[in-house]
Amino acid sequence: MKVKAAIYGASGYTGQELTRILSGHPQVELIAVTSRRFAGQRVSDVFPALFGLTALTYVDATPDDIASRCDVVFLALPHGVSMGIAPVFVAAGKKVIDLSADYRLRDLATYETWYAKHQSAELFAKSVYGLPELYREKIKSSSLVANPGCYPTSIILGLAPALKNGLIDPGSIIADSASGVSGAGRDPVVGSLFCEVDGGFKAYKVGKHRHTPEIEQELSALAGAAFAVTFTPHLLPVKRGILSTLYATLKKDITPAGLHDLYREFYRGEKFVRICPRDLYPNISSVAGSNYCDIGMALDIRTRRVIILSAIDNLIKGAAGQAVQNMNLVCGLAEDAGLAVAPVFP
Amino acid sequence: MKVKAAIYGASGYTGQELTRILSGHPQVELIAVTSRRFAGQRVSDVFPALFGLTALTYVDATPDDIASRCDVVFLALPHGVSMGIAPVFVAAGKKVIDLSADYRLRDLATYETWYAKHQSAELFAKSVYGLPELYREKIKSSSLVANPGCYPTSIILGLAPALKNGLIDPGSIIADSASGVSGAGRDPVVGSLFCEVDGGFKAYKVGKHRHTPEIEQELSALAGAAFAVTFTPHLLPVKRGILSTLYATLKKDITPAGLHDLYREFYRGEKFVRICPRDLYPNISSVAGSNYCDIGMALDIRTRRVIILSAIDNLIKGAAGQAVQNMNLVCGLAEDAGLAVAPVFP
Amino acid sequence: MKVKAAIYGASGYTGQELTRILSGHPQVELIAVTSRRFAGQRVSDVFPALFGLTALTYVDATPDDIASRCDVVFLALPHGVSMGIAPVFVAAGKKVIDLSADYRLRDLATYETWYAKHQSAELFAKSVYGLPELYREKIKSSSLVANPGCYPTSIILGLAPALKNGLIDPGSIIADSASGVSGAGRDPVVGSLFCEVDGGFKAYKVGKHRHTPEIEQELSALAGAAFAVTFTPHLLPVKRGILSTLYATLKKDITPAGLHDLYREFYRGEKFVRICPRDLYPNISSVAGSNYCDIGMALDIRTRRVIILSAIDNLIKGAAGQAVQNMNLVCGLAEDAGLAVAPVFP
Amino acid sequence: MKVKAAIYGASGYTGQELTRILSGHPQVELIAVTSRRFAGQRVSDVFPALFGLTALTYVDATPDDIASRCDVVFLALPHGVSMGIAPVFVAAGKKVIDLSADYRLRDLATYETWYAKHQSAELFAKSVYGLPELYREKIKSSSLVANPGCYPTSIILGLAPALKNGLIDPGSIIADSASGVSGAGRDPVVGSLFCEVDGGFKAYKVGKHRHTPEIEQELSALAGAAFAVTFTPHLLPVKRGILSTLYATLKKDITPAGLHDLYREFYRGEKFVRICPRDLYPNISSVAGSNYCDIGMALDIRTRRVIILSAIDNLIKGAAGQAVQNMNLVCGLAEDAGLAVAPVFP
Repeated sequence: MKVKAAIYGASGYTGQELTRILSGHPQVELIAVTSRRFAGQRVSDVFPALFGLTALTYVDATPDDIASRCDVVFLALPHGVSMGIAPVFVAAGKKVIDLSADYRLRDLATYETWYAKHQSAELFAKSVYGLPELYREKIKSSSLVANPGCYPTSIILGLAPALKNGLIDPGSIIADSASGVSGAGRDPVVGSLFCEVDGGFKAYKVGKHRHTPEIEQELSALAGAAFAVTFTPHLLPVKRGILSTLYATLKKDITPAGLHDLYREFYRGEKFVRICPRDLYPNISSVAGSNYCDIGMALDIRTRRVIILSAIDNLIKGAAGQAVQNMNLVCGLAEDAGLAVAPVFP
Repeated sequence: MKVKAAIYGASGYTGQELTRILSGHPQVELIAVTSRRFAGQRVSDVFPALFGLTALTYVDATPDDIASRCDVVFLALPHGVSMGIAPVFVAAGKKVIDLSADYRLRDLATYETWYAKHQSAELFAKSVYGLPELYREKIKSSSLVANPGCYPTSIILGLAPALKNGLIDPGSIIADSASGVSGAGRDPVVGSLFCEVDGGFKAYKVGKHRHTPEIEQELSALAGAAFAVTFTPHLLPVKRGILSTLYATLKKDITPAGLHDLYREFYRGEKFVRICPRDLYPNISSVAGSNYCDIGMALDIRTRRVIILSAIDNLIKGAAGQAVQNMNLVCGLAEDAGLAVAPVFP
Repeated sequence: MKVKAAIYGASGYTGQELTRILSGHPQVELIAVTSRRFAGQRVSDVFPALFGLTALTYVDATPDDIASRCDVVFLALPHGVSMGIAPVFVAAGKKVIDLSADYRLRDLATYETWYAKHQSAELFAKSVYGLPELYREKIKSSSLVANPGCYPTSIILGLAPALKNGLIDPGSIIADSASGVSGAGRDPVVGSLFCEVDGGFKAYKVGKHRHTPEIEQELSALAGAAFAVTFTPHLLPVKRGILSTLYATLKKDITPAGLHDLYREFYRGEKFVRICPRDLYPNISSVAGSNYCDIGMALDIRTRRVIILSAIDNLIKGAAGQAVQNMNLVCGLAEDAGLAVAPVFP
Repeated sequence: MKVKAAIYGASGYTGQELTRILSGHPQVELIAVTSRRFAGQRVSDVFPALFGLTALTYVDATPDDIASRCDVVFLALPHGVSMGIAPVFVAAGKKVIDLSADYRLRDLATYETWYAKHQSAELFAKSVYGLPELYREKIKSSSLVANPGCYPTSIILGLAPALKNGLIDPGSIIADSASGVSGAGRDPVVGSLFCEVDGGFKAYKVGKHRHTPEIEQELSALAGAAFAVTFTPHLLPVKRGILSTLYATLKKDITPAGLHDLYREFYRGEKFVRICPRDLYPNISSVAGSNYCDIGMALDIRTRRVIILSAIDNLIKGAAGQAVQNMNLVCGLAEDAGLAVAPVFP
């Protein structure tokens, strides 16, 4: 019998990507997709690419209504909105995969500093951070999975082996990341127009991006002590993809081969992390359309720094794909069900 | 038991796309990929996107060697090279899907006018033109399938319903097409460099493109009489996709609804042809990554012309996907096996 | 003494382009730029590219106020808005270059069929169509120049020599055009988002685009008799550029050399029309950033058709550049003053 | 009387850009452009964008021949080739602007470690590093100007004020840069193909790029002591532009306003350096087509780091534009002659 899934807030790019993946998932029946703006319109009228792949129409349904019909719900809603809806599903005994930031942080005060007053503080403490490569077992038994942010996914996976092994000085970490435009969503704003983005490249929210506390929380957990990072996001003129270039100073001596082995060992058996061959670096175009995180690395002996490169598709491993990976874990399915898809290159 | 497949000339974009699709095909075992230039290198070193998806290494093997090990072979070779190799496989009783132009034309003199002296004239007469929507039954019983060109696929599928129903004047047909750069292959030439293509748009080989006789052959067969077409290819600054804008003068009166019904009826039951809702036109970005051909249409009452829009992914429905569709037919598999993949949008 | 110029509606892409060109024009002093939305903001805050090149701040000033301070005004306003403002400037004895469609058509009923009720019918009859290559002398003595649309500019310049010389059958003309996204303006709409446009190509408003009557008016004037054209616009994933591929059936025999000579002769001495060498076709990337219109051509002997290719930068020769060219004529300056700039390639 | 200039190696992108700028320079007569590959072809056949702007034909002329006819020569040749040719021009009493790396370094051993055996060691010591904002007076009296590399230009201009004022710890500097594809030149290689680059983003030559010693030489000179930097170049899917994101740890306390003032003061009066308003960061699309370097900055108080953003057009301020700026200085012309051109946006 198939898992009955619903998507709340399904008309953005992340919601569309969830719709696309779940429509092709062999063990899932997608039973409802909600959208206030597009209620009454067919999904395939809003996203012609999905014509023939789903017959669903967007509905503007209450959480109670959706909860009565599904086993698992994906919340692809803005920060601040999810926390008003997730409790209904949890109370109804349903599994929730929340793609917003509302349940990602462990410290309520930090959430309220960077975001807003939290309205679901009780559940806040019960969620699990949905990065399967680090928290697989906890996720399996959770009812509320906080799906990680796109930048944090690339950065945490990139630094976990080095931090966990005490290889680098946490205080020296600099995360320089660049994201495709789909990360900004489908809302029509001047900054996302083709003419504003194409041919351009710029940094934004330097030192102020809301993913910073999430990155610091998880990296600090890996290091065993709290510290701050410098995080600089950039906007790339591409549709999909995040590349994080991660800098840190070595605390121990290591050879290039030793560094490579350490990463390969850490991710041995992981289906969605690929360690590049030595001296090759990941390219976002080699993961686009897939749930992979590709990781490469270099030692700069002259400055005693390690440079880690980490690439994902921000809509898949950075959002919808990882959400489905979490759903598979929560529902007892094969972790890669519906996700064993090759990147689309060129 | 799985079908054993091989790809001859697998290191170009079409060969890579075949490798990608066949690696994920549930009823196929890809047993060999050949490349002179990259012999000895792993596929995933040449195309990092395929890392973890195939363990194959390129070989420079003889046709006899490959033929002894496979059930079906794909020839992703330049025009003029296929005809030197296909006969070996046919003689060995293997199925051949040839992606070159060598066996597409029915008239030898036409081939030799537009291409070169043919060296496999006997087989030339025995091939079947591999457009499943028109020649499905013949393909099923064939040993040598001539996979259609990318431009012809989009144009023939776009015009078939109108021509077959005598709706339009064949002599009035103008095919204005635009293709992504992957159609030019992976050979390093100045004209395919990023800096030459990005931000640009131009026509090329106006009135002289080699796909012209192939287009005319199939359109004439549909019309029941020979005629010439004006065909203008353009180069688009995108990686994948062909859009053909097809113009013809009406021979009969028809309403917009009647035109739409005619197309929907003609392609009823076809898995890979999608007729757009009325007043919507296809976009190549809505078929990218899939085997779909999307078709839209308009009537220009003021000039008594019909305008048909036809969109495909040139590497999939225009090459590798259609080749696998043909292989499925030839091998008795479900026609959409390995191909039931949603487009990747955005 | 410098010409004092103002731009009404200066915060869109066309207004920005006018600001850019006029800021570098040696005989012009740009004295005011208006914008309701950005009133009070510096131009360089809205368009950082212009930082250091203009010190102007957007104002929300009345036409009377602006008219009292300038010699010439550019109206870069939406259709329907210009006609409410142009009369103020004309009455004040100022020169007006209107970039909207409000004064382009000669037939009031046609305007009202395709646009809306006209509120400035008297001036409507007194404007001149601002295509210098066809109407140079009239423009010089005009007070109200209707700057042509972007698509019409490329199409009319492309077909003028053939029509004027009776070479082609007017009823056979098909104009297949593709435009960069800047033609859609800077308003934030979903259809202009990077993720919706990049990697895509589609037709839109097939047989219904409002530039159709303008195209037909000017082509009919050249042919000496009224006729209708089929016009299909497409959206290109580039920022700037229009390529029109123009099809027509020959009425007379002509050689390729004869066709080439006819075009070179027609445009002899024109500074902004470049006829490509034989067998070369224009590319929008070779005119981007300049006021050039590049034209190439081919004969398709097999179908007795001529194919003309015409490329412009839609923001320059298709809008702001041509407007400055008109201003130069109206103000008695050298026609290429401020416009003698090389395209930016790559 | 005009300065007579020649370009040696003029058929690459840098050579084309020099041709474009010099063709429009009011005080320069471009008398010869050389190219082995394209000798005998008109510049405008190789670069149609320049049709009508230059009537020159590429020649394969000896240095002696060119030297006898020009006042100043630009060497747009590969590293290692320039040093075989520059001495001829210097001996003939001509001014040389060398765009290769051959004369940029002050230490011969460093050159030979990163490049190859030097064959012009005597002149090596006599060249001046052609960054006008730092070495204006020396350049004016030099006969051999070593035009800086593109990455170094963006990095040195970005860090000069902070280093010169002792604000940052030199050993903490990390330069994370991203370049458009034109930086790789016009040679047809797979890695520069549209399909390999579009939609992608990757690091390359991590810790190994040949611009490293040039960057370290100039930064060390500014700091007054030698140190090593971590430099990571990336490849952007754009034609033009470099953005460098520069990280360093503060040695002194400073406010955001103080930092901004320090940069504005340092570059006061410079025509080609624009300091962004506070809290705004540069975008490569706002300098494309111009000789500007735009600089923005942020303080990350939590980690006591300064982040500097520096944007240039790699073909202009990073190559041909800066070369012309140097020529203007060397020849006693206004420093911005021929270069006072607004960026082309969008």
